[in-house]
Amino acid sequence: MAKEAEIIAVGSELLTPQRVDTNSLLVTEQLNLLGVEVTSKHVVGDDRERLTWAIQTSVKRSHIVILIGGLGPTEDDVTREAAAAALGRKLVLSLEQESVLINRFRQINRPMAKNNLRQAYLLEDAEALPNPNGTAPGQFISTDRGALAMLPGPPRELKPMVINELIPRLSHVVPPQAIRVRAWRITGIGESDLDALISPVYKQYKNPVTTVLSSPGDLFVYLRAQGENAEEADSLLRKAGDPIADLLGDLAYTNDPDEPLEAVVGTLLRKHRATICTAESVTGGMVAARLSEQAGSSDFFVGSFVTYNDDQKASMLGISRDLLSKHGAVSEQVARAMAEQARQRSRATYALSATGFAGPSGGTEFDPVGTVYLGMAGPQDTRVIRLRYGAGRYRIRMLSTQASLDLARKTLSKK
Amino acid sequence: MAKEAEIIAVGSELLTPQRVDTNSLLVTEQLNLLGVEVTSKHVVGDDRERLTWAIQTSVKRSHIVILIGGLGPTEDDVTREAAAAALGRKLVLSLEQESVLINRFRQINRPMAKNNLRQAYLLEDAEALPNPNGTAPGQFISTDRGALAMLPGPPRELKPMVINELIPRLSHVVPPQAIRVRAWRITGIGESDLDALISPVYKQYKNPVTTVLSSPGDLFVYLRAQGENAEEADSLLRKAGDPIADLLGDLAYTNDPDEPLEAVVGTLLRKHRATICTAESVTGGMVAARLSEQAGSSDFFVGSFVTYNDDQKASMLGISRDLLSKHGAVSEQVARAMAEQARQRSRATYALSATGFAGPSGGTEFDPVGTVYLGMAGPQDTRVIRLRYGAGRYRIRMLSTQASLDLARKTLSKK
Repeated sequence: MAKEAEIIAVGSELLTPQRVDTNSLLVTEQLNLLGVEVTSKHVVGDDRERLTWAIQTSVKRSHIVILIGGLGPTEDDVTREAAAAALGRKLVLSLEQESVLINRFRQINRPMAKNNLRQAYLLEDAEALPNPNGTAPGQFISTDRGALAMLPGPPRELKPMVINELIPRLSHVVPPQAIRVRAWRITGIGESDLDALISPVYKQYKNPVTTVLSSPGDLFVYLRAQGENAEEADSLLRKAGDPIADLLGDLAYTNDPDEPLEAVVGTLLRKHRATICTAESVTGGMVAARLSEQAGSSDFFVGSFVTYNDDQKASMLGISRDLLSKHGAVSEQVARAMAEQARQRSRATYALSATGFAGPSGGTEFDPVGTVYLGMAGPQDTRVIRLRYGAGRYRIRMLSTQASLDLARKTLSKK
Repeated sequence: MAKEAEIIAVGSELLTPQRVDTNSLLVTEQLNLLGVEVTSKHVVGDDRERLTWAIQTSVKRSHIVILIGGLGPTEDDVTREAAAAALGRKLVLSLEQESVLINRFRQINRPMAKNNLRQAYLLEDAEALPNPNGTAPGQFISTDRGALAMLPGPPRELKPMVINELIPRLSHVVPPQAIRVRAWRITGIGESDLDALISPVYKQYKNPVTTVLSSPGDLFVYLRAQGENAEEADSLLRKAGDPIADLLGDLAYTNDPDEPLEAVVGTLLRKHRATICTAESVTGGMVAARLSEQAGSSDFFVGSFVTYNDDQKASMLGISRDLLSKHGAVSEQVARAMAEQARQRSRATYALSATGFAGPSGGTEFDPVGTVYLGMAGPQDTRVIRLRYGAGRYRIRMLSTQASLDLARKTLSKK
């Protein structure tokens, strides 16, 4: 049976309307890769009594309990005391940690306040987890059912401690398992259509576990297989994953969950030794901003004409006034002219164009708010597509940007 | 004593490494405005037993318990059953809700699956909360200590239900208190410098409560005062808030927490009946994208020249090759020429320019990675500022975009 974990994030700031706990995401990811399931997450304020209570109940229910935050030097930082009370163990001054602290303050050339000594107290039988990026050591305690760990809240202290200290220790607590993950990023289809397409496959399997996530214009599918060894996990992943890959076809633009669409487009442009520019109206520079996001994008991205009214379309791109008044700025003809003129004026190999009605006002009977024309001009030809989105200015602009980049991807990957 | 609330977000997808619960932020905000403190938050998967247990313990500890999610029509949706088990109440088919459901499916012209009938079951003595944006009604139940509510997870269903249905009912449960909030959005200063500036004031007060939040280039300060009546809360807010406002001066660009910097710039441009364009290199279109984000931005935003290499600076903006080779593209002289040429070519009243080294490669001894020149040309003159940021391509681009908009704000607000 898979081991179970709970995560408790500590800090009153995490109970305000402005802030969410994101530290638990990194910890969840690392636990999942060990084959440990996170069964619940908690956010508790800097309140010793409530925290003690939360730890007590979590330790009863789950093998592994991870506490994040509340290890600072001030009276507000109650995680050490709460854990001691919950487990019925003493807090003991560690002379070793005391000298680590004193050395650290000497290094950064700052006086050590008396309060800081609080950070040198460890739970009885706890192992200190070194923190090269801050003053609070982590703590790791073996419990009857598994383990409890206390980790610092600042992400730059937390992340290396999880990877370098916590996970190696937990791997002794957890029976060895091989975990393999396969992922797809997908665009050009809605979430419910995607689910209708692939759920007949993934619903047949409990292992791998399938997760589908969506953000505007961007969908993620993750399969996570668990086996006694790598071969078994890989084979489970192939069995469920290969038919899903077939169904997705070129809707999937990458298997790397950290690779955004603009990086895929950049790689294709580099491969063809080609450059690109954009001519944008409805997207207002968002396609350009995405194309220039990656380091080294000046290899393939040359620039953009953001023409937000007819005058600029005429003066910056030389679109004829006749064409604009005859067809309107939101039209197939103008999208085509924008792409072709941008390509010619910039001398880039390719040019993308986007014109549409983002709303809330504007639109015509034939082309209501949400209508977008996207063009791509290249050495051989120019292609224009028409898309229709539902209402919502922000969403229309986001989806149009994504669709423009996807038009580039599809065109370039056919070359 | 202030009433206490706990929020339980339900859904296994919220326990993956990819997703956080953000629904609780809206609910927290609305509860805080009633004077109710959120003392802990939980995320529980689609697991009936664990959820029952979480509800039972929350109901024991806190006056108000809010469950979000798990009200869908499928077997995975266990919130109704878990709440019934936790409170020891029956689930009863509501004939009224059944006919609401049938009508809804008729309206959207889709057949109603048998599963959907699950959504017509209410807890004994529960009041149904109408959901005009979905099929799952909310539920509101008076308990010994206060109230328990079940709300749907999709944000567009949740938000109107919280504001229109939940809060009016809770206001009968909670003793009347007046809450007043005062907020500032701030740019052009780092978080620790801001805290050093204003903490001597806010640390004197427990009421109002002060929260400082930061995102790259954007800081938020919130004061929340609680009084027996509006006058008392307002007076507490003035006492702590007026000195803070004085200290902030024109670092603060708005008191509306929902008003981004580009909206402030847009308002100033409209006031002066002026227009603006941008000439961007390092920001790659991000300033243009921000300026065009608001509805109606074509009133003041005309377009942008994104010139990502020297050729485009020469051809799109007519920057002389001599100037570029003499000073380099990242220089005060080129920032000035970009702004002035963009203004002239677009005929906008003002033009912003941005050129710099976002890295990771590039930079010179005098202008290393992180150096950015920002210009603003207007009818009277052109101003160029030089800024130096630490490493990090994403951060340098974000901060430069924000600083460019802030240069526009400061220039325009002095007119």
